[in-house]
Amino acid sequence: MIILGIDPGLRTTGFGVIEKHGSKLRYIASGTIKTGSESALPPRLKVIFAGIAEIIRTYNPDCAAIEKVFVNVNPQSTLLLGQARGAAITALVGGDLDVAEYTALQVKQAVTGTGKAEKAQVQEMVARLLVLPGLPGTDAADALGVAICHANSHDALALIGAVAPALGGLRMKRGRLV
Amino acid sequence: MIILGIDPGLRTTGFGVIEKHGSKLRYIASGTIKTGSESALPPRLKVIFAGIAEIIRTYNPDCAAIEKVFVNVNPQSTLLLGQARGAAITALVGGDLDVAEYTALQVKQAVTGTGKAEKAQVQEMVARLLVLPGLPGTDAADALGVAICHANSHDALALIGAVAPALGGLRMKRGRLV
Repeated sequence: MIILGIDPGLRTTGFGVIEKHGSKLRYIASGTIKTGSESALPPRLKVIFAGIAEIIRTYNPDCAAIEKVFVNVNPQSTLLLGQARGAAITALVGGDLDVAEYTALQVKQAVTGTGKAEKAQVQEMVARLLVLPGLPGTDAADALGVAICHANSHDALALIGAVAPALGGLRMKRGRLV
Repeated sequence: MIILGIDPGLRTTGFGVIEKHGSKLRYIASGTIKTGSESALPPRLKVIFAGIAEIIRTYNPDCAAIEKVFVNVNPQSTLLLGQARGAAITALVGGDLDVAEYTALQVKQAVTGTGKAEKAQVQEMVARLLVLPGLPGTDAADALGVAICHANSHDALALIGAVAPALGGLRMKRGRLV
């Protein structure tokens, strides 16, 4: 299963592609999509959309996961970040991918074992888990972290799904217990 | 010139299509794209994206205009609205349309002559300007209003462009004076 992770942002959107084979994770690619702040909003969103569409064409992922964003103290920044995240999600669903969402806390927990980890610790652990020769940039590391988080939570959900019938007939539907 | 106007929203996105022939405006179509609040965000953004893509395929507009949105008192609502607007803009630029942005104030000014107009007055004037047999819904009326605003501002910009050289060598570039 190939997973595409996205850390959305208007100026810089991080992406990370990993492959999950049983319990093993393998690094495929990562990087950033950058938009120039001198452009108007619509062309910047187009860059994000086209960039993610290109990544989907290139790596053909089976599913996607994207980081949930926080509201900023500055409402105008919240609005801009929201629009960038909307463009990113649109590119993912436009590529017919199911999109899971995780908070930064969940990602840190999955990668480092604690929700209080610093950026550097996330980079360090992502590099270790994926056996990278060096540290990825912070945006790429966050995106790879989201993908790792999704790979692990997929395991956990599958496990719950397997034992759920014995627990009283819960069923898995689109990754959720119903 | 066929203009597509969009009034973005997560629950309801209004759209309006008009044709501009010289100084005459003609109504082509309008309506709303609705997303169910019981769904997760990604499928809701997909509905907005697919809906606008379908409108573009059907009416083949030459350009698009979208209303700027205000930050809400509730930051979480601002984030949701931002993501919906991001999905809408992405659908427009994904359809290779240039996208102009106008504030609600500019739209009201263009349609009713005053920035202080109520929703009902906008509906009334949109129906009158486009010779509609009845009042459009508020979301469709706002979207038609954005399209009308763009049609008018296009005229104004062309006029400034025509006289600008005499004013000291200003030039029009992508609808802006440079």
